[in-house]
Amino acid sequence: MAIKNAFYAQSGGVTAVINASACGVIQTARKHPEQIGKVYAGRNGIIGALREELIDTSLESDAAIEALLHTPGGAFGSCRYKLKNLTENRREYERLIEVFQAHDIGYFFYNGGGDSQDTAFKVSQLAEKMGYPITCIGVPKTVDNDLPFTDCCPGFGSVAKYIATSTLEASLDIRSMSESSTKVFILEVMGRHAGWIAASGGLAGAGEGEPPHIILFPEVPFDREAFLKRVDFCVENYGYCVVVASEGAQYEDGRFVAEAGSKDAFGHTQLGGVAPALANMVKQALGHKYHWAVADYLQRAARHIASATDVEQAYKVGQAAVEMALAGKQALMPTIVREQASPYRWHIGEAPLSEVANQEKKMPIHYITDDGFGITDDCRAYLQPLIEGESFPPFEKGLPKVAKLQNQLVEKKLKAEFDI
Amino acid sequence: MAIKNAFYAQSGGVTAVINASACGVIQTARKHPEQIGKVYAGRNGIIGALREELIDTSLESDAAIEALLHTPGGAFGSCRYKLKNLTENRREYERLIEVFQAHDIGYFFYNGGGDSQDTAFKVSQLAEKMGYPITCIGVPKTVDNDLPFTDCCPGFGSVAKYIATSTLEASLDIRSMSESSTKVFILEVMGRHAGWIAASGGLAGAGEGEPPHIILFPEVPFDREAFLKRVDFCVENYGYCVVVASEGAQYEDGRFVAEAGSKDAFGHTQLGGVAPALANMVKQALGHKYHWAVADYLQRAARHIASATDVEQAYKVGQAAVEMALAGKQALMPTIVREQASPYRWHIGEAPLSEVANQEKKMPIHYITDDGFGITDDCRAYLQPLIEGESFPPFEKGLPKVAKLQNQLVEKKLKAEFDI
Repeated sequence: MAIKNAFYAQSGGVTAVINASACGVIQTARKHPEQIGKVYAGRNGIIGALREELIDTSLESDAAIEALLHTPGGAFGSCRYKLKNLTENRREYERLIEVFQAHDIGYFFYNGGGDSQDTAFKVSQLAEKMGYPITCIGVPKTVDNDLPFTDCCPGFGSVAKYIATSTLEASLDIRSMSESSTKVFILEVMGRHAGWIAASGGLAGAGEGEPPHIILFPEVPFDREAFLKRVDFCVENYGYCVVVASEGAQYEDGRFVAEAGSKDAFGHTQLGGVAPALANMVKQALGHKYHWAVADYLQRAARHIASATDVEQAYKVGQAAVEMALAGKQALMPTIVREQASPYRWHIGEAPLSEVANQEKKMPIHYITDDGFGITDDCRAYLQPLIEGESFPPFEKGLPKVAKLQNQLVEKKLKAEFDI
Repeated sequence: MAIKNAFYAQSGGVTAVINASACGVIQTARKHPEQIGKVYAGRNGIIGALREELIDTSLESDAAIEALLHTPGGAFGSCRYKLKNLTENRREYERLIEVFQAHDIGYFFYNGGGDSQDTAFKVSQLAEKMGYPITCIGVPKTVDNDLPFTDCCPGFGSVAKYIATSTLEASLDIRSMSESSTKVFILEVMGRHAGWIAASGGLAGAGEGEPPHIILFPEVPFDREAFLKRVDFCVENYGYCVVVASEGAQYEDGRFVAEAGSKDAFGHTQLGGVAPALANMVKQALGHKYHWAVADYLQRAARHIASATDVEQAYKVGQAAVEMALAGKQALMPTIVREQASPYRWHIGEAPLSEVANQEKKMPIHYITDDGFGITDDCRAYLQPLIEGESFPPFEKGLPKVAKLQNQLVEKKLKAEFDI
């Protein structure tokens, strides 16, 4: 079998551990020089392939690649760019083939969520439909934990650990303040369509009255009256109320709570923030003093408090992707298969890209308590192992050390530029 | 000298390390049974003294007290309550004396910021003006770093480390996304009057073009045009722009940026959020895609990423307070005295409460760059040692372990209740 180069790219919202997957791909490829030549990383995902902007990872030292294990963000740049269908934009696919051909690329590894697995699937069709032989394997990644077939998604466990830890810590803070000051604390977390991240806040406490007292899921229609009643009950009975709210919390009619009508001085709709929207609701209806936080990028970039389980799984799906490709497999995505929850045991499985693409896994209804404001024991059992283990990065001068890559581009071989 | 009991209380906004000061006070007191009987902690600060709600810390095990070292929040409850002057509310002071007398309290340790040192000073006057002998020592604490006389305030170093780390991590995230998605990221941090916390975000990067690209300080009047121009310059030249904004950022005329005119659907002024206010400004003027985060309580509760320097200083000011009291000193606050920045050396000094109370230490103007958007090398040299060293808490089931106290109240001896 001829030696071929590999293309690897990162796609969609990045995570604290997507670079651990990159590390898994590159280190494993380096162990197989008899089959894989160089690993070229797309500069800003698939855009790098279309523009022929290929980063030569062979120029990076072993130490720099190893440092990817503890570096958040996407080391080669990511993108939000979805390939159209072959019939809609044939030119894009032709361009990919030109670039792959020019750089002798025979392996394609695409690291991302649902949309990205769709892209990987489309590229895998190049082999079949346009006669260009390329081995395509998707590498799962998403903080939203919404990919099908896999028990969990690399990236999620670390966000879950961050949110559970932050909820625990902030709850101790507000509990101290509640007698004479703040009584309600609202933490807004990611998850536009699925409540997995919000659910993870629930791990901070379990007993009667322990925070968080309210979790708002996108899966449960937001009921203003029930929410306010529950807030008031908690303040009355526990002295304070901690709310973890998914950014995707929405009313029965599909309007996001975050969009519910606030306008700025110019009459423009104020963009965003389910936390401030809820805080204003509490203030107006109940008058309680509140604080709110919006974790936003902090939650998915927080490599300093990553889950060791998550880091390991992120690495392993990268490694498995290369091993699958070397074994001649095609159009697959490695998955995490749970063997048992406690003690946690798992192994790598596989799922066909054709079925992964564009499916969303929401929270099962039996993971949410009957009142819609909490997580069940089943949900806890599912989430618990995913946040376990610490994987602190090395520190230097008080700050996490991160990989410093050269990210040097390969010389272009094609004359034409490509506008995307 | 007769054995007397001690009263210790926490006051104002709590921090990741105020319990380390509590640990310093209690452990040091336990070493001196010949002078100090029991340490009673005020339930919710000075309110606990007024209500005769005294927590008997002697019932807590050595292990539980030791665990305070890694537990954020205020373990005994804090308060926002400021004693009036003796002439304005003599009854309050009489009540304090009644409670202290009833419980044989001869030492008063009050752990807080400027307002709290004011309270400690007023209580110290009881001895002089009302003939009740009590030794009063303040214990400094504030994330705002705005106490005078002390080189830094316990609580600040850990927030600074959290903000610098979060800025670094989130910057790697947005840098990955900026080619085809988010171009501006705004992190809102605490500091209503002083920009110390915002400044600490500056430690995340130092070279030309390194994030954060813009820091907004309360000390520098907000100039909308200059801000937007700088954002645009960064997006144009570096591909993205990271902003760390103090919640206290304000216009020349004193209006907070956060309050600048946004109203909800009912016409109520929308409360809070300099980050969303800036994000909307950027969107409307420049059209860039943005993300924003508000760290709020997460920053001051983040014991998991506390600075080891800060934890040590917090402990030592608690220890020093007790040692000063035992040495017969009165109406003082232990301070941190910097000997040199690199390698960092410091020792404990002291300042009179009469002069500490109600003074605010703002950022010196030479700590801010001429354009008003960054920190100078002097500022870096000041901040750097304060975030150094890691002091990770122990973890259990993926979450930080925290102290579990019994917080049992001493039986009341006074008949009268006291309404506050």
